[in-house]
Amino acid sequence: MGRWEPDAGGRLAQAALALYGENGFENTTVAEIAERAGLTERTFFRHFADKREVLFAGGSALQELIVSVVADAPDSQAPIDAAAAGLEAAGEQFFVQERRDFSRQRQAVIASNPELQERELSKLAGLSTAIADALRRRGVDDPAAALTAEVAIAVFRTAFERWIDETNRHDFPQLVRESLDQLKALTAA
Amino acid sequence: MGRWEPDAGGRLAQAALALYGENGFENTTVAEIAERAGLTERTFFRHFADKREVLFAGGSALQELIVSVVADAPDSQAPIDAAAAGLEAAGEQFFVQERRDFSRQRQAVIASNPELQERELSKLAGLSTAIADALRRRGVDDPAAALTAEVAIAVFRTAFERWIDETNRHDFPQLVRESLDQLKALTAA
Repeated sequence: MGRWEPDAGGRLAQAALALYGENGFENTTVAEIAERAGLTERTFFRHFADKREVLFAGGSALQELIVSVVADAPDSQAPIDAAAAGLEAAGEQFFVQERRDFSRQRQAVIASNPELQERELSKLAGLSTAIADALRRRGVDDPAAALTAEVAIAVFRTAFERWIDETNRHDFPQLVRESLDQLKALTAA
Repeated sequence: MGRWEPDAGGRLAQAALALYGENGFENTTVAEIAERAGLTERTFFRHFADKREVLFAGGSALQELIVSVVADAPDSQAPIDAAAAGLEAAGEQFFVQERRDFSRQRQAVIASNPELQERELSKLAGLSTAIADALRRRGVDDPAAALTAEVAIAVFRTAFERWIDETNRHDFPQLVRESLDQLKALTAA
């Protein structure tokens, strides 16, 4: 990002989300997004491969952070707690108060488009695989690694749904801990 | 299915799976599937909307069965155990020994095609939603209902992966119980 375009990516993303909400994802063009942001299409394509990527741009960084926290967790930490620590760290960095409106709008756009839903599910499946791989590198066997990763995704989704709720007053890491505690209570033998 | 076509659907499905495995899903035509099965294209389209639906045809019946078992579970049964009972019942009816080769081939075809993977994930997400709805009708609140349903899907996927493994000697309901027990151990507070 050049110095002459302060947060062009952020402006483009906000313009895109606003237009997707107003006119629908399908009916919005890159030209319109650029115009709304006061930037050129060329600038758009320096930041995003296409209009869909506006919605999924942060995914790789999120995944890398979670995987690195799982990898660095103390040996004494149970697999599910290592995974939860990754989700909490992701929350601290990515799901902060200032991003809540954006995240809520994003979720509404995705919910209204089956193709975007499928892509979101595919990204979450990729995150699950990455967490399972990180657990295997910690010496966790299968099926425990795969099962723990799937459970972590369930916790993540639940925390995220609660976080974007209008009435929510908790921060993301807190909701991860609450969801995990609830899961532990639900599965108590 | 007419009387003059004994198990035409089954023959078409087996022919399709064989061809997808040999030539790839993308490179297989409905005409080839019908020819391999010794039937007409018209017969194919009486059984399946398109070549993709061969892979997903059983999904609705599976979902209905799971939901009905969850709905009819005794009030005393914990939500996760009601969901697991649904998965075990599905296993008894759909994931039987004679279907194991078919299921394994199907999984390999899906794993080789991103579009089919996304569809599979979408179907599983739909199953999760249906289980959560069934739990809500039993009086389970959110986020417990959604969380339990997601956990059930994690158990289902793990049991399924283990079931189709060449070395596996357990039946599907047993693998559901084992996966659930493992999950309970993994999430023990």
